[in-house]
Amino acid sequence: MSKTNAHPPHPVEFEPEFADGLRDIFEDKIVFNRVLGLQVLGIKPDRVTGRITMKPELIGHFLHNRVHGGVVSAALDAMGGLACVAAIGGRHMDEPPQQRLQRFSKLGTIDLRIDYLRPCVGTHFDLTAEVLRLGSRVANTRMEFRAADGKLLCTGAGAYIVS
Amino acid sequence: MSKTNAHPPHPVEFEPEFADGLRDIFEDKIVFNRVLGLQVLGIKPDRVTGRITMKPELIGHFLHNRVHGGVVSAALDAMGGLACVAAIGGRHMDEPPQQRLQRFSKLGTIDLRIDYLRPCVGTHFDLTAEVLRLGSRVANTRMEFRAADGKLLCTGAGAYIVS
Amino acid sequence: MSKTNAHPPHPVEFEPEFADGLRDIFEDKIVFNRVLGLQVLGIKPDRVTGRITMKPELIGHFLHNRVHGGVVSAALDAMGGLACVAAIGGRHMDEPPQQRLQRFSKLGTIDLRIDYLRPCVGTHFDLTAEVLRLGSRVANTRMEFRAADGKLLCTGAGAYIVS
Amino acid sequence: MSKTNAHPPHPVEFEPEFADGLRDIFEDKIVFNRVLGLQVLGIKPDRVTGRITMKPELIGHFLHNRVHGGVVSAALDAMGGLACVAAIGGRHMDEPPQQRLQRFSKLGTIDLRIDYLRPCVGTHFDLTAEVLRLGSRVANTRMEFRAADGKLLCTGAGAYIVS
Repeated sequence: MSKTNAHPPHPVEFEPEFADGLRDIFEDKIVFNRVLGLQVLGIKPDRVTGRITMKPELIGHFLHNRVHGGVVSAALDAMGGLACVAAIGGRHMDEPPQQRLQRFSKLGTIDLRIDYLRPCVGTHFDLTAEVLRLGSRVANTRMEFRAADGKLLCTGAGAYIVS
Repeated sequence: MSKTNAHPPHPVEFEPEFADGLRDIFEDKIVFNRVLGLQVLGIKPDRVTGRITMKPELIGHFLHNRVHGGVVSAALDAMGGLACVAAIGGRHMDEPPQQRLQRFSKLGTIDLRIDYLRPCVGTHFDLTAEVLRLGSRVANTRMEFRAADGKLLCTGAGAYIVS
Repeated sequence: MSKTNAHPPHPVEFEPEFADGLRDIFEDKIVFNRVLGLQVLGIKPDRVTGRITMKPELIGHFLHNRVHGGVVSAALDAMGGLACVAAIGGRHMDEPPQQRLQRFSKLGTIDLRIDYLRPCVGTHFDLTAEVLRLGSRVANTRMEFRAADGKLLCTGAGAYIVS
Repeated sequence: MSKTNAHPPHPVEFEPEFADGLRDIFEDKIVFNRVLGLQVLGIKPDRVTGRITMKPELIGHFLHNRVHGGVVSAALDAMGGLACVAAIGGRHMDEPPQQRLQRFSKLGTIDLRIDYLRPCVGTHFDLTAEVLRLGSRVANTRMEFRAADGKLLCTGAGAYIVS
């Protein structure tokens, strides 16, 4: 498989042990994600999905009752990182799940850009992240933050160190 | 005074009513900043400073005990916004403090970039933001996130709608 | 029509006078685009397309014969701007084409981010830009730079002042 | 010397062979930099400076006679890359100049952000770039594009792969 191709011809299906392990890391072990209430919904090598449910702690602009821009950037950074670990996992299906999970320890965000398109108001928000390129050292991701009705509210782009 | 000059020739000193009002907005009314524990230390028209004290909820990478990248992006977004409101305030010293404070209601982040240079580990972190340009509609800011010993850990750049 | 909806329900088809006028601005009047050899291929309110043909002047890394990163950023900045003017044009179909074209004079890039995913090597490159949100003052765009075989080489995000 | 400290205690002075070699690469061998007319003025391990002289080919917005945003992004990308090679050179003064120059072959831009603060109009422009962090694989840079009178016109941030 090409090192620069994040979309393998035969789609990889992760074992529960790996998917549950990743969910545990991103929902619980990363403490600040718990503060955000980040839920991981789907984990595939080329795309991960998640959700944030609105709660008062997440409010930014109290006059408009909308989510703080930092909740968006924090959640999309986390989703981009999750997408990287999932993509790396998809490349190392020959390794046992626990060994693949340990690759998370090398992950670090290099930089992040968030575009705030529309006010983030609603009962919950749907998040997606995909890896545009997975290299041996650096991965690039694209993220989206959508309203419950699917409207695109914010977009993100990130670069991550992966090894 | 030139509309594109954020550094007026005679330095403006804000009244306590305005500075305390801004601190109250950014430390308390913006609920998520309370979650971060963001403290506003200094408010001048061309530069604002703040601090984040480490606490377990802010942890991102549990293996390394370092601050979540989203704490950095959230805090620097908030500091950039504060810098904009301070710069706008400095241009409208002819208005009463309460009227100047209401200009906050128009503020919105257009986009944000964060560069993560070094692991954010420590007892507290010092934040600064300055406005590079204040236009009638858009302001551009530059932010820094430093360790207690002054080491530069992260930098940020933001664009804000201000009217 | 909603001010924040760049995709009107009934697709707008531009008159040749408007499309040719825009092409003339972006291919010829913007002198540096001529240096790049930027060709405008398609102009619709929600999406514009273009092409860059490889030539020696565009080389960046002489060891690898690949396109200079600045060619990518310049071309994607131009395409993002073109997408904004097209989107604005689609909202003002009640104005005569010449008047719509004059709206270009208000356009300015606020900021730009480019992600360089893969080496840009080839005989030509295909460019697209879409407006994610068109506000009354600011527009946000997303751009792509692809190889002749469709492979995604670079992505971009921009914010533009539009009035 | 610490791997993450771009400012060595004893300032490094490059030999003419290394500095001239780098200037030759960035002014001549990178063909598109020649199109821009990029001049390299100063090369130090922690800071590089350059200049662009105005010429008709660089015009973007013909109505305002100002420099194309892509000239700024291309020039600041180049300066950021030069800063990286200079910083790497400063860490390997034990290698002969020609060997240090070959490290350029590993350089690649990961991503770039440019903020356009003020219209770029003038007879020439002064450029600076500094490395905020030089890691073993990734370097982060900060760049500035100034008017002849020193006014800050644009800022940039870049991430580069360096090995």
